[in-house]
Amino acid sequence: MRTPVLGIVGAGQLARMTVQALVGLAVPVRVLADRPDDAAAAVADVTVGSWGTAAELERFARRCDVVTFDHELVAPEVLDAVADAGHVLRPAPAASRYAQDKLHQRQELGRRGVPVPAFTAVASLDDLHGFADDHGWPVVAKARRGGYDGRGVWVLADGDDARELWETATAGGLDLLVEAHVPIEHEIAVAVVRRPSGDAVTYPVTETVQRDGICVELRAPARLDDDVLAEADALARRIADDIGAVGVMAAELFVTADGLVLNELALRPHNSMHWTIEGARTSQFENHARAVLDWPLGDPGATAPAVATVNVLGPADGGDPRDRVAAALAVPGVAVHLYDKAPRPGRKLGHVTAVGDDPGDVHARAWQAATTLTTAATAPESFR
Amino acid sequence: MRTPVLGIVGAGQLARMTVQALVGLAVPVRVLADRPDDAAAAVADVTVGSWGTAAELERFARRCDVVTFDHELVAPEVLDAVADAGHVLRPAPAASRYAQDKLHQRQELGRRGVPVPAFTAVASLDDLHGFADDHGWPVVAKARRGGYDGRGVWVLADGDDARELWETATAGGLDLLVEAHVPIEHEIAVAVVRRPSGDAVTYPVTETVQRDGICVELRAPARLDDDVLAEADALARRIADDIGAVGVMAAELFVTADGLVLNELALRPHNSMHWTIEGARTSQFENHARAVLDWPLGDPGATAPAVATVNVLGPADGGDPRDRVAAALAVPGVAVHLYDKAPRPGRKLGHVTAVGDDPGDVHARAWQAATTLTTAATAPESFR
Repeated sequence: MRTPVLGIVGAGQLARMTVQALVGLAVPVRVLADRPDDAAAAVADVTVGSWGTAAELERFARRCDVVTFDHELVAPEVLDAVADAGHVLRPAPAASRYAQDKLHQRQELGRRGVPVPAFTAVASLDDLHGFADDHGWPVVAKARRGGYDGRGVWVLADGDDARELWETATAGGLDLLVEAHVPIEHEIAVAVVRRPSGDAVTYPVTETVQRDGICVELRAPARLDDDVLAEADALARRIADDIGAVGVMAAELFVTADGLVLNELALRPHNSMHWTIEGARTSQFENHARAVLDWPLGDPGATAPAVATVNVLGPADGGDPRDRVAAALAVPGVAVHLYDKAPRPGRKLGHVTAVGDDPGDVHARAWQAATTLTTAATAPESFR
Repeated sequence: MRTPVLGIVGAGQLARMTVQALVGLAVPVRVLADRPDDAAAAVADVTVGSWGTAAELERFARRCDVVTFDHELVAPEVLDAVADAGHVLRPAPAASRYAQDKLHQRQELGRRGVPVPAFTAVASLDDLHGFADDHGWPVVAKARRGGYDGRGVWVLADGDDARELWETATAGGLDLLVEAHVPIEHEIAVAVVRRPSGDAVTYPVTETVQRDGICVELRAPARLDDDVLAEADALARRIADDIGAVGVMAAELFVTADGLVLNELALRPHNSMHWTIEGARTSQFENHARAVLDWPLGDPGATAPAVATVNVLGPADGGDPRDRVAAALAVPGVAVHLYDKAPRPGRKLGHVTAVGDDPGDVHARAWQAATTLTTAATAPESFR
């Protein structure tokens, strides 16, 4: 049997790390990049082109046996048309829609009993006010489509915030939904990797820490009670089965006093699982590819009792973490992953991971390395 | 500080896995390939060209800040000329010579007290006979330069064998040395990774199993007495210091009733350490690059109590392991590394590694996966 050709739409860091993970499996990978300097372009067989129309995506899909995705931005009607033309898209368009359209996700999963925040579609400024009357300020408004890394999410404290957002949304043609503000005790993520047959594995539940809506830190396994972990695992598996996910599906969950609440859903390798490269026996990137190729899945078990990952965000001074790798490697026992992207303040440029026996120790080392990568000052002598 | 550009001369599987290991460090790597279908060519910025003359190698070196090697085949006078022209070669030519010239290695290291087999240079058939008179048949004849994977090594049982080899050697212009046949109890390998400053780390001692002169299996850590392991570690470190090794230096050692004996020396990432990709906190490939870039070295410690690696050799039936990856992945907990090379019977096409708590278990799983990759018969249902 000839090895199938895997196509990836989008050439960001997720595609880059998937390509890296597949070198050993000798899987031919083709990547559809937006720009020649995308993160994956330096490491892959890249075609620079558009996925904006069915004809354009089909041109790429014809050169692949299975097509998967680095992002959720391809329009549903384009996905439908390409799937209808007989190309194998994994996840399938119907599953992708749960990540692409937050209103659809809330409506469908809520109807099936998945715990989601109280929500409603917003067709007018009155809808925002009416929802706040019922649930109290603050409320959380979200773009129905296209948000990520905190973009497309607004916490509205009062009617002034609501009016301002409504004006922006009207001017920008933005569809909104609004949700109750959930009192969060912890934020966690669970990733299920699922084959077309339904065979699935789940990675250990991961603690995530967000700052300004962007994930800054991961710790695995999450330091929560076993029954919470088991419940989170079961909830994510159930969602993956319900929506027919194929590949990695990451569920971001809130832990609240009243139980778990679904926050976001992604149907692709996810930032919350970057720790799996060193911290799990099989990385999310390899397992995503194995799942979409319908190959047996790899062991998701941890390689050590404690793993911590810290994201490397573009420093405010405009410095380039690529120039500071040697200094960061002086921190003992860290793995550095840079995405080879041009630095911009706040942009996700990489991550570092430490594994070991003690959660506090790995956490400290990961932060130390990430700080070294993002701090202009020369590293202290002891860490050179 | 701009990230230095790393050049690798040779584009085999060692270069391929080095490139893969360096994706996360965003190190620009240039590879000088012999042929466009070399193993590393599909994953790297490859220049197809020759390293046969100083002018050719210099043309490549000018585009790199540091040049390292995937093999030992570049002629010493070419290395000397390129280094003299001011290019940074790591290891340096004087160190490389210990791997390139077995007579030099035996003479110099023997003189410094490293345990080597009894040996002598061979300038005539009489030299072979004289050596056998002193040490008894069988004797081991070796090509002074260029041998690998059992090529260039001949066990001579008697005078007939000696005459036959001598005729071949004379006809082929082959320089020989001859060594006493050492009664081997175990074969082990130790890898030192050394920076130009002398900072060094050592990987856990590894058991190797050869068949027909080619390595078929690795087990780490070696199941030998602690004092033997410590002695092997110290011997390898001492050799690396003595010869000024930079990057990975792998010493293949015989364990005999009379102690350790140096068998072979390689100054590059080595097949005996392929288990370090999953089995060590930092792989030999990443650490080789860190050492030759003069960057801080990574933790060589094991990720699990037991690691086993089995080489995937081209099957006699001409089958292609690339067609059997899915079946091999059904064996639980194995990592598959194929080099994307055209299959030929006996050719090293890849390796598989299993890590875990029990040496017997990981050994069985690694063999099961390797056998699946090299057996034409369809894998049993339970392993699909």
